[in-house]
Amino acid sequence: MTIFYGISILIAAIAFAFAAYLYFWVKKQQQNNKRITEVAGLIRDGANTFMKREYKILAVFALIVAVLITLFLPNPIWNAETVDGRWSGWNNITMAIAYICGTILSAIAGKLGLVVASLSNGRSAEAAAKGIKPAFLIGFRGGSVMGLIVVGCAVLGVSVALWTLHDASLLLGFSFGASSLALFAKAGGGIFTKTADVAADLTGKVELGIAEDDPRNPAVIADNVGDNVGDVAGMGADLFDSNVAALTSALVIATSLTQGMVELSMKMVLCYAALGLLASIIGIATARITKNGTPTGALNSSTYVTSAVFMAFTAAATYFFDFSWHIWGCSTLGLVVGVIIGLATDYFTDDSKPIVKKVAHASKSGPAFTVLSGVSYGFLSALPAMIGIAVSALVSYKICDTEALLAEYGANFPLFGISMAAVGMLSIVAMIISNDAYGPIVDNARGLAEMGGLGEDAIRIADELDSAGNTVKAVTKGFSIGAAGLTVISLLGTFMAEAEAAGHTFLSGFDIMNPTVFFGILIGAAIPAVFSAMLILGVDKNAQKMVAEIHRQFDTIPGLKEGKEDAKPEYDKCIDVATTGSLRELIPAGMVAILSTIAVGFIGGPEAIGGFLLGNIVSGLLLSLFMSNAGGLWDNSKKYVEAGNEGGKGSEAHKAAVIGDTVGDPFKDTAGPSINTQITVVSLVASLLSALFVQYNIFG
Amino acid sequence: MTIFYGISILIAAIAFAFAAYLYFWVKKQQQNNKRITEVAGLIRDGANTFMKREYKILAVFALIVAVLITLFLPNPIWNAETVDGRWSGWNNITMAIAYICGTILSAIAGKLGLVVASLSNGRSAEAAAKGIKPAFLIGFRGGSVMGLIVVGCAVLGVSVALWTLHDASLLLGFSFGASSLALFAKAGGGIFTKTADVAADLTGKVELGIAEDDPRNPAVIADNVGDNVGDVAGMGADLFDSNVAALTSALVIATSLTQGMVELSMKMVLCYAALGLLASIIGIATARITKNGTPTGALNSSTYVTSAVFMAFTAAATYFFDFSWHIWGCSTLGLVVGVIIGLATDYFTDDSKPIVKKVAHASKSGPAFTVLSGVSYGFLSALPAMIGIAVSALVSYKICDTEALLAEYGANFPLFGISMAAVGMLSIVAMIISNDAYGPIVDNARGLAEMGGLGEDAIRIADELDSAGNTVKAVTKGFSIGAAGLTVISLLGTFMAEAEAAGHTFLSGFDIMNPTVFFGILIGAAIPAVFSAMLILGVDKNAQKMVAEIHRQFDTIPGLKEGKEDAKPEYDKCIDVATTGSLRELIPAGMVAILSTIAVGFIGGPEAIGGFLLGNIVSGLLLSLFMSNAGGLWDNSKKYVEAGNEGGKGSEAHKAAVIGDTVGDPFKDTAGPSINTQITVVSLVASLLSALFVQYNIFG
Repeated sequence: MTIFYGISILIAAIAFAFAAYLYFWVKKQQQNNKRITEVAGLIRDGANTFMKREYKILAVFALIVAVLITLFLPNPIWNAETVDGRWSGWNNITMAIAYICGTILSAIAGKLGLVVASLSNGRSAEAAAKGIKPAFLIGFRGGSVMGLIVVGCAVLGVSVALWTLHDASLLLGFSFGASSLALFAKAGGGIFTKTADVAADLTGKVELGIAEDDPRNPAVIADNVGDNVGDVAGMGADLFDSNVAALTSALVIATSLTQGMVELSMKMVLCYAALGLLASIIGIATARITKNGTPTGALNSSTYVTSAVFMAFTAAATYFFDFSWHIWGCSTLGLVVGVIIGLATDYFTDDSKPIVKKVAHASKSGPAFTVLSGVSYGFLSALPAMIGIAVSALVSYKICDTEALLAEYGANFPLFGISMAAVGMLSIVAMIISNDAYGPIVDNARGLAEMGGLGEDAIRIADELDSAGNTVKAVTKGFSIGAAGLTVISLLGTFMAEAEAAGHTFLSGFDIMNPTVFFGILIGAAIPAVFSAMLILGVDKNAQKMVAEIHRQFDTIPGLKEGKEDAKPEYDKCIDVATTGSLRELIPAGMVAILSTIAVGFIGGPEAIGGFLLGNIVSGLLLSLFMSNAGGLWDNSKKYVEAGNEGGKGSEAHKAAVIGDTVGDPFKDTAGPSINTQITVVSLVASLLSALFVQYNIFG
Repeated sequence: MTIFYGISILIAAIAFAFAAYLYFWVKKQQQNNKRITEVAGLIRDGANTFMKREYKILAVFALIVAVLITLFLPNPIWNAETVDGRWSGWNNITMAIAYICGTILSAIAGKLGLVVASLSNGRSAEAAAKGIKPAFLIGFRGGSVMGLIVVGCAVLGVSVALWTLHDASLLLGFSFGASSLALFAKAGGGIFTKTADVAADLTGKVELGIAEDDPRNPAVIADNVGDNVGDVAGMGADLFDSNVAALTSALVIATSLTQGMVELSMKMVLCYAALGLLASIIGIATARITKNGTPTGALNSSTYVTSAVFMAFTAAATYFFDFSWHIWGCSTLGLVVGVIIGLATDYFTDDSKPIVKKVAHASKSGPAFTVLSGVSYGFLSALPAMIGIAVSALVSYKICDTEALLAEYGANFPLFGISMAAVGMLSIVAMIISNDAYGPIVDNARGLAEMGGLGEDAIRIADELDSAGNTVKAVTKGFSIGAAGLTVISLLGTFMAEAEAAGHTFLSGFDIMNPTVFFGILIGAAIPAVFSAMLILGVDKNAQKMVAEIHRQFDTIPGLKEGKEDAKPEYDKCIDVATTGSLRELIPAGMVAILSTIAVGFIGGPEAIGGFLLGNIVSGLLLSLFMSNAGGLWDNSKKYVEAGNEGGKGSEAHKAAVIGDTVGDPFKDTAGPSINTQITVVSLVASLLSALFVQYNIFG
């Protein structure tokens, strides 16, 4: 086993080293423009202020949870006994420490991503004045630093935690640490970014008809800060969490296999995770715009390279270490299905494909049609991903469901297959994060190019880079939602195993005809809707406040509206509105999800929780796919109109498209991607509290 | 048993007689205004033309299905055998006949409702010139005729079918006839009505700033036709279907109880259904606006009267005929929860409550906020109903899940309890339909009062009646969605019973950890989204066509836009656009739902279908609650602004609120309520084809 820990830690170290190399590469690129340096500084300061205040709140939250874990989990500490000279209360303390470690690693990953992002944006903007290739490379490599660090932390954290704890189920604490921080970071950052974005668009684009990043707009810096805290730091925490959760659930299920096969299976999980990271390093190193190539092409082709390398590496490892080829099949299937889901998402959100054009065309008849057609295609877009997840779960299970395999590995082998399909789908996550973090960096670069007065050409190049970021973002979101779907199936298995370990007997599994299960399903299905609604209302409320603040500035600062040279907007006031507002909204939505899980568990017992998790995942998948895709679709429809189609900028169609984009903003960047984390958190809470639910419940 | 058939048929006859009395009462009210008579005639003719063309298409569809049933259901006819001198192929023929009877009764119910609605609208308009009370009474009684006929047909049809067939499972054919017709009638009517409504609003209210029913608008007659074919005929078919499905599933489950208890339980179902109709007759007869009362108060109080009478009657019957008090408890619980769901819905959609005001206030910041806040509250509004359904299912089950009862009635008794909770919730459906059909009648009356030049006072009164219709509609929709939820749980039980009867053994029920079940769940959950999307896109596409047609008329008919006396719009062209468009869109969405059920059944077998039904119901409930409530909320927010709040008519807030209303139109009147029927149809298809799925499948 030691050699596999060694391999994992070694590859994580390589990832960190490569990240450091890229960091210094980015840092040595030039940044001379005074105005850009100044504005980039404002953005960095705003982001740091927000993060500091956010992390303070989250630290308090994490400490409270750590105390609760020490008291109650995995079993109430006052029931702790000393068996064979070992006091079982140590489990509580270890789990609390694992939890804290999970939150800290998650916070570090977010923070480091932010540092490099705020280093890259200005440099990418200045490079845009020279050409698309250097600007792209700076944006992408900046994003890659984040990707490598996040996945490096995940692989390192899981390996070290497992090595020291020797107990996969204590890993749940580590994973919950990562998830709970991600939930709030994602929610808080998501509300911040869209509060600013929506308010800036409505006052700037719609009311005044000025450009997106016009420095006259008091919300423009807040908008760019939002890209960093929401899309970079929040997203990093989110994918760190998905990755850890997928590995944890695979490891927990591995321990439930036939005794002799446990170690081999755990080795396999660690090995695949490490190879995924290695494949991503290669993919990142080879990414560049080819002659006559586009940024989108560059991002996509490096994804394909990574996927192919991963398949080859894992095949070699499987051959070499005598792993199960069936599991290799599951992992490869997961990855392939992930790519297919991504392509399907692309079809619905790419502006060279028909759907975006249809929505843009509908905008000619007014904003109601923009919204209606976007909602409809958003609904439709959920189908391919749902089918993809359903098929990969079913086929993975069936691949591993032969008599010989069950005899060799034990009854849970098919479930292990599903969990490894999730690991496969997430294997290239470092690559995905690189693509994802590239988006906000070049989005910022676009703003800086405009505010720094770098000229039409640089702005056009930055625009092209930004649009590629949008398309790729939609694709990677499809990926991470798909993986979350598969992970949660295995977390359902984890919960079942934990509840059984706590002495519960499932008479007929989680039979949907059992009214307790059904009760859980319906409540669970309502939660993602409630959670999304609370986040969107948070954006809604705060954006209205910020709009009011912007209007105040327009009214009281002479010459600001007219764009006079010496009229300076008070950027910091807007940043403050977004910060205060999002910090107030960040806890409640997440708490609703956590508390409802606890309530259902104590009312209906383990069976109700099984149903609850299922309902939650089903409606969560549907809503997050719908919202992410509809949002991406509206955003790109607006860009398509702005490119001169259907009447172009300033036309009625454009106004309608901007309204669609505004509706889509909190869909795709606040609620949609947060649901992912919400699902994981709820599953982990259920597994962690399983023993309590078994002991105390009303109807179970 | 005969006496219960007798009671049911007698009460159905009383309902028909009372309906006839009300019909002639409405008919003898005066209608003198020439212009109103003329316009009401145009509306009637438009509606009849549409219905005739729609029914022609549906007749072809029904005949094809009848042939398929004869060939394949319940078992392939070529496998038919002669046992004890009876050829089992007769079952196929009987089922086909039952199917045809179901479609015919459903069509008749829709058609008769339409006849009386188009008789009432003009009379109610003229009465509005005299005062609110007579105008209300005409609208309400016109709607009641529809309610009585629909439920009379359901009770009569189920009783006679059961009496003659002696086989509850053949009733599934009857129920499927009702459902499949309802699915297409609802979809077709829903697309028609919103095509016209949206186009009329956008060109009239938004572009020209003229009133809703201004006769200059070429779409105004089509809009009124739509109210009739969508909200009256479509809704009638829909609730006929829900009612029949609830009774059928209760009866099928009753047959699976202990031998000696089957007849008693079936008697109970028939008796409760008949008493519900009787209670509704009493409620309808007593409905009127009290001194100082409001139309909303009148509608609600008659609902409460009906509920109370039903509880008392069923308690008496339970005492008298020695039915199970536990089941009485389930039925009463269902009814009470239905009322609670209705009240919760009311909280989110009534313009005297805070939510509507918040959305209206958000509209001041622009249409994006109208949409975002409406979507959010729509999501939130799903929670109480989901909890209500979950609790009533769980508690009904637990009420009937005692050892003594299981020993007496058999293992399926708790499931019977759930099905009777659904029957209880739907018991007052005749009352609900009366309230529901009242809406479009007074909506029409409002238009006629304006077009007939009856003056400000009459229009104001008609407006007040219309607003009450909107509020009550939201409440009754909550009711029918809730009942559909409970019915489908029992239909899931029906499917299980049918599959077992066809020789399938469910090893672990529908365990969600079984990947075949899970596969079905994910696909099933995507279907309501796809179905809704197709309907909304249908509205979207056709409304754009109609807007183009209206623009053409404005451009080519001199003086029309300016409102010159002699400039006559070509109303029939608009009616034609809506008719042709909705007839083209009506089949595909329904077919997607039916064909995907069949595909999943043949791929995954009975287990996958169980999952499919569950996924379908869960996401169907969530989406239909969301869409119905968000739509009602936007509609009433617009009305609230129009009443002079947040800037009143013509303000920016009003424009935003109108856009919200336009988005909500197909949500609440096309997709939302159709999902209900889609869920039922899919469940029935599954039960009907169970034997085939058991025999032929790939992965099951």
